Amino acid sequence: MAERLIYLPLGGAGEIGMNAYVYGYGQPGRERLIVVDLGVTFGDMDSAPGIDLIMADVAWLEANRDRIDAIFITHGHEDHVGALGLLWPKLQKPVHCRRFTGALARLKLEEAGQPVDQIHIHAPRPDVVTAGPFRVQFVPVSHSIPESSALIIDTPAGRIVHTGDFKLDGTPVVGEAFDPILWHEIANEGQGVKVLTCDSTNVFSPHPGRSEAVLANPLLDFVMAQRQLVVATTFASNIARLKTLAEAGIAAGRKICLLGRAMRRMVTVAVETGILTSFPPVISPEEASELPRDKVMLIVTGSQGERRAASAQLSRGRYLGIQLKDGDSFLFSSRTIPGNERGVIRIMNALSEMGVDLYDADDGLYHVSGHANRPDIEAVHDLLKPQIVIPMHGEHMHLREHAKLAEARGIHAMVATNGTMLDLSGEAPRVVDQIDTGRLYLDGTVLIGAMDGVVRDRIRMALNGHAMVSVIIDEDDTPLPDAWVELSGLPEQGRAGVPLARNIESELAEFLERADDRTVMDDDRLEEGIRKITRQVSMEEIGKKPEVTVVISRLAAE
Amino acid sequence: MAERLIYLPLGGAGEIGMNAYVYGYGQPGRERLIVVDLGVTFGDMDSAPGIDLIMADVAWLEANRDRIDAIFITHGHEDHVGALGLLWPKLQKPVHCRRFTGALARLKLEEAGQPVDQIHIHAPRPDVVTAGPFRVQFVPVSHSIPESSALIIDTPAGRIVHTGDFKLDGTPVVGEAFDPILWHEIANEGQGVKVLTCDSTNVFSPHPGRSEAVLANPLLDFVMAQRQLVVATTFASNIARLKTLAEAGIAAGRKICLLGRAMRRMVTVAVETGILTSFPPVISPEEASELPRDKVMLIVTGSQGERRAASAQLSRGRYLGIQLKDGDSFLFSSRTIPGNERGVIRIMNALSEMGVDLYDADDGLYHVSGHANRPDIEAVHDLLKPQIVIPMHGEHMHLREHAKLAEARGIHAMVATNGTMLDLSGEAPRVVDQIDTGRLYLDGTVLIGAMDGVVRDRIRMALNGHAMVSVIIDEDDTPLPDAWVELSGLPEQGRAGVPLARNIESELAEFLERADDRTVMDDDRLEEGIRKITRQVSMEEIGKKPEVTVVISRLAAE
Repeated sequence: MAERLIYLPLGGAGEIGMNAYVYGYGQPGRERLIVVDLGVTFGDMDSAPGIDLIMADVAWLEANRDRIDAIFITHGHEDHVGALGLLWPKLQKPVHCRRFTGALARLKLEEAGQPVDQIHIHAPRPDVVTAGPFRVQFVPVSHSIPESSALIIDTPAGRIVHTGDFKLDGTPVVGEAFDPILWHEIANEGQGVKVLTCDSTNVFSPHPGRSEAVLANPLLDFVMAQRQLVVATTFASNIARLKTLAEAGIAAGRKICLLGRAMRRMVTVAVETGILTSFPPVISPEEASELPRDKVMLIVTGSQGERRAASAQLSRGRYLGIQLKDGDSFLFSSRTIPGNERGVIRIMNALSEMGVDLYDADDGLYHVSGHANRPDIEAVHDLLKPQIVIPMHGEHMHLREHAKLAEARGIHAMVATNGTMLDLSGEAPRVVDQIDTGRLYLDGTVLIGAMDGVVRDRIRMALNGHAMVSVIIDEDDTPLPDAWVELSGLPEQGRAGVPLARNIESELAEFLERADDRTVMDDDRLEEGIRKITRQVSMEEIGKKPEVTVVISRLAAE
Repeated sequence: MAERLIYLPLGGAGEIGMNAYVYGYGQPGRERLIVVDLGVTFGDMDSAPGIDLIMADVAWLEANRDRIDAIFITHGHEDHVGALGLLWPKLQKPVHCRRFTGALARLKLEEAGQPVDQIHIHAPRPDVVTAGPFRVQFVPVSHSIPESSALIIDTPAGRIVHTGDFKLDGTPVVGEAFDPILWHEIANEGQGVKVLTCDSTNVFSPHPGRSEAVLANPLLDFVMAQRQLVVATTFASNIARLKTLAEAGIAAGRKICLLGRAMRRMVTVAVETGILTSFPPVISPEEASELPRDKVMLIVTGSQGERRAASAQLSRGRYLGIQLKDGDSFLFSSRTIPGNERGVIRIMNALSEMGVDLYDADDGLYHVSGHANRPDIEAVHDLLKPQIVIPMHGEHMHLREHAKLAEARGIHAMVATNGTMLDLSGEAPRVVDQIDTGRLYLDGTVLIGAMDGVVRDRIRMALNGHAMVSVIIDEDDTPLPDAWVELSGLPEQGRAGVPLARNIESELAEFLERADDRTVMDDDRLEEGIRKITRQVSMEEIGKKPEVTVVISRLAAE
């Protein structure tokens, strides 16, 4: 059978988050595989209450583990590397990345108690990593974290460029600038680019993206204009932004204090890996709290409203000896990711109550995106002249829009969401399989399947409340008449003006008294009767039907 | 004791939603009271799972019911009238409003089984409603629903202008245009305006608001450009928008079909009350489904992503015989209210999967706000020349910004959030009391207090899962060794690789065997021990501590 080149997204295609992509080459069903990125996404109360992290279900990879040659990580954002420690035990393959990303990947493996010697650090192109039939090069791209890389994946069927997350930034402040000559080279080597697998995040943003460097002056002006304490928040991993913010603070005659574990860790890693050579000196929270307010600038975690991050802590009162007050200024040097609005607004209002003046990036002065906008994506299509474009890193609407963009330029394109396996060997992509995929949830310390029912039950309890009924059947197989009902998350009292639990109990007592032997002797039948009455009485009394758990205890004859 | 004029917001001040304001005049503690608006807000999974509606806790009003003379409703939006039916039984006072608002208020009372003859319909200024010491006039203002009104509240201590929700729109398409001459009159009668209680929603929007009329041409262009079925969604109560959309559809040679109960009801009420004199003819869904796709335009409910509205139904598949498909167009002629993003995005992606092209109002062409922007608010300050500005209808940050705006013009201003009672008699406002207030939740058919613990328990179960333990103590006061554990919303299995419930049961069996008489005889002590073990074992096994409900059944000696 002829060999073929396949593409299979397991995460990140049809959503923004938990990236996990697979490429394969070989005879159908026997392709050698590489994995690109193993990221997480975060749960919310609407869809995954109590869940700590969400990641792609890699059951298919696990079942084909002997075919995997390597794992590549494009950059150190959580949605690209966050699941590495948790999923590595299922794959147990070498991990390839560049130095800064490697330091973060190493932390992930360490936290999960996995062997860190599995991480292999590589220099960027022209260095080549060989993994089975694949020859892979890391190509520096600009993004909102240092050392982001696109991957050139050379295969016997042609060249793939997998962009990872990127923007076109000629002056990225920290890290490597966009290099059009390099990309021109990549496009024109050998047979050129067969497949461009490309970031779609900002495909709806109509204007060309802006450089990180444009923020320096507005941020300096901003800090200069403030009279009391200045606080700025951004993503901890945006080292360039941290640097720009810190330099603005220093230039305005302030000392810099970093708050938030993630931020201090990122700066440490950036210094240790040589990414960051000239970060201004920082002071401790204790030192900060002793200086005059107009001599300090805090740079803090929590730009997305995270409840435990520094910005949320500061919004709730004194934190590490620092208390915000009337006349202080708080800048969100960030964009709120859709879905995080409630958390961010909560913090803003709490700060407002303290008299803190709020500033956001809505007018574009204090934040630029890390992703390529629509014209930038078009520029990359033109630059790389791929035969096929596969949009990735986007919700369905982003992927679809991106595919339309490519098709308008006469390029073959296809929307392939998680689980869709494409054959890329031919002129145009072709769907060849649909893999059962899904999501894994980290719940406490346990990985569970999204469809296991755990989360479904939590959501039901949250929406409907929970009634627990305990019934005892005595040694003679006669139900004791006093069923016990405990309610959780339900109003104590309904229409009748007596406690709902007592009301249900008395209906149950009647039911148990009347119940025939066939019902009493059959757990399922008895449970069904009890559940029905509990829900019926609740509906009449309070207008809703709770989840019901029935415990039947049968006393053994002595 | 001297008489005084008081202001007390119970809802809407420190949040956007559930408006409820109180004014009083008289001797301290004996003021005669009027209530302005009784609105609702909507719960979400983060803060109020399973809750149907949220409204101000009116316990203070209930306790002072004999002092209330009347309830006034400014306009028919849910956040101003939605709680009328539910709260009216606690107040039982006459309700005053204009005709269109009255029709909606009547529906609220009907739904709640309350007497509709309590609604009194009034013509706008110069007509006056006398309520105790207050003389109240309805002043037409433009907003995103017909017949919105500001209230002029004349009191012995001076004139209050309570704006309600408003914008400055000289060409509002439906309803009354902003009339600067009328406002000039109001400002200059008698002693002028003592207090302006003013909408703060858009205080952060820097540009002057735009008229509803500017949408007609862009919307017509939009519909003309589409080749298949066109669907547009907006708020059902935005009658002007419905009219503009429908007229665009007709002008483009399409028939109009309204989908969604709320929308058809609004149009019916608008026609019956004489608001809407020239709405284009509409066709039924059955008729729509039989016409060619390029001859139909649907106008549908669900612009905020509501799960049961027409837009959500259409995004899930066939609805009332209509099925969207490749090449159809879907327009959000609306802004997504912060917090609703997830629901809207869900629908957009589902439509994208059907091949539907999506259009939103991000570029400003297809939606204008119903609230006054910052320059409009400043214009009203200048026009009315109030002595005092009280910002309302906003989160804390909006109120604070609005107060700063007024102060910058030399006007006394004060941020008063829900529960803060102000004395407005003097030159400047003064805080005179802090009322215990809060929120009531409609849960099914029951009104519960936000602090009753019901919702707290639901959130805890959703985050932590729920373990139920049933223990039986026999006639000799000896615990039966086989405690029964049922888990809801928890992983079945943890670290040990055996079912978590069985694991807990065996630890409990050991505990019960060892337990001394003092523990066994004392329900609280026994429960505490059981809870502790359940949580401990869970923590070790799955890394989280569930909520625990313990049922202890004591068998009576025969």
